[in-house]
Amino acid sequence: MTGRKIGPWTVTSARTVFDNPWIRVVDHGVVHPNGAEGEYGVVQFKNIAIGVLPIDAAGKVTLVGQHRFPHDRYSWELPEGGGPVGIDPLISARRELEEETGLAAASWAPLVAFDISNSVTDERAVCFYAWDLTQGAAAPEASEALTIKKVPFNVLLEMVMKGEITDSLTIVMTLSAHAQALRGEAPAPISGSLLAPAART
Amino acid sequence: MTGRKIGPWTVTSARTVFDNPWIRVVDHGVVHPNGAEGEYGVVQFKNIAIGVLPIDAAGKVTLVGQHRFPHDRYSWELPEGGGPVGIDPLISARRELEEETGLAAASWAPLVAFDISNSVTDERAVCFYAWDLTQGAAAPEASEALTIKKVPFNVLLEMVMKGEITDSLTIVMTLSAHAQALRGEAPAPISGSLLAPAART
Repeated sequence: MTGRKIGPWTVTSARTVFDNPWIRVVDHGVVHPNGAEGEYGVVQFKNIAIGVLPIDAAGKVTLVGQHRFPHDRYSWELPEGGGPVGIDPLISARRELEEETGLAAASWAPLVAFDISNSVTDERAVCFYAWDLTQGAAAPEASEALTIKKVPFNVLLEMVMKGEITDSLTIVMTLSAHAQALRGEAPAPISGSLLAPAART
Repeated sequence: MTGRKIGPWTVTSARTVFDNPWIRVVDHGVVHPNGAEGEYGVVQFKNIAIGVLPIDAAGKVTLVGQHRFPHDRYSWELPEGGGPVGIDPLISARRELEEETGLAAASWAPLVAFDISNSVTDERAVCFYAWDLTQGAAAPEASEALTIKKVPFNVLLEMVMKGEITDSLTIVMTLSAHAQALRGEAPAPISGSLLAPAART
């Protein structure tokens, strides 16, 4: 690892300073692009963040409400979870959707993928549309206290535009889905639901 | 700190395991919502992430290209930086825009604010529109090797929709600005530039 180049930086040392089942924090000694020596602490995520936009035949999406520990804030979100790096994100998405909401989806399509935060973490998100839904029983993890509600997609869009939803994955999935539908790029069977005007709610 | 409640969790201990000028990593002992004991490691950010969508009289936005160390990936983004918690984000935005691009803006408006990542970090973003621009000289930090380019807003939107832009702040700012303009909620002087159809590029 030492001596390797990361873009314009040279890495002179790497020391793991914290490690738990979810993250590893590595403090790097670096030579900066301008030649100055410094440090670069990086939070390496052991999971890919998985997001799902599940939409039913009535055009309703399923939201999950939970208190987010790091922000000490209650947050309404589309179903999300973590999938181990190296596992097909779609497999993780099926599992997370079923665990959190009890929903199984017969149809899936890619929605958006992005770098969640890029200053000091390597956290990445992969998100999917899910439709043709069947409702079963949810089985959340011990660390989760979740509330479920279903709203029309245009109500979710309103919540995003008013700033009532603060979660980045939910914001990116909602705005991307709406923009894709406006451009005719969303999956045809759900495109109409993604375009329903706010006035209809 | 010990014994305090964070939503449905009870915090039984808190230990700082890493601290640098940008982040503090705190490992918490917790009692989970279901009564089980566990740990919750949180990455506390010392800065708010600041994003700026600067748009000139010709409808062009300024993009900043840089290699992102944590992802080891080159990334085209709207101007971004960090502002200390407790400082007015608009003051940080003026400084970051000028440092990275040399641009000074006479007009500013709020664009969007959100939680960048909420599973194990408390990183938050505050983003602004900037217009009525004057070009000066950029003065990037030692740790930054930046390239600047200007593109019409609709080209930026295309880059986002095609997945060529992977940075969450840039994706959220671009899609939010476009959606606000479509709803008549963007600042009037720049609204037309945010609505220019892709065919015009």
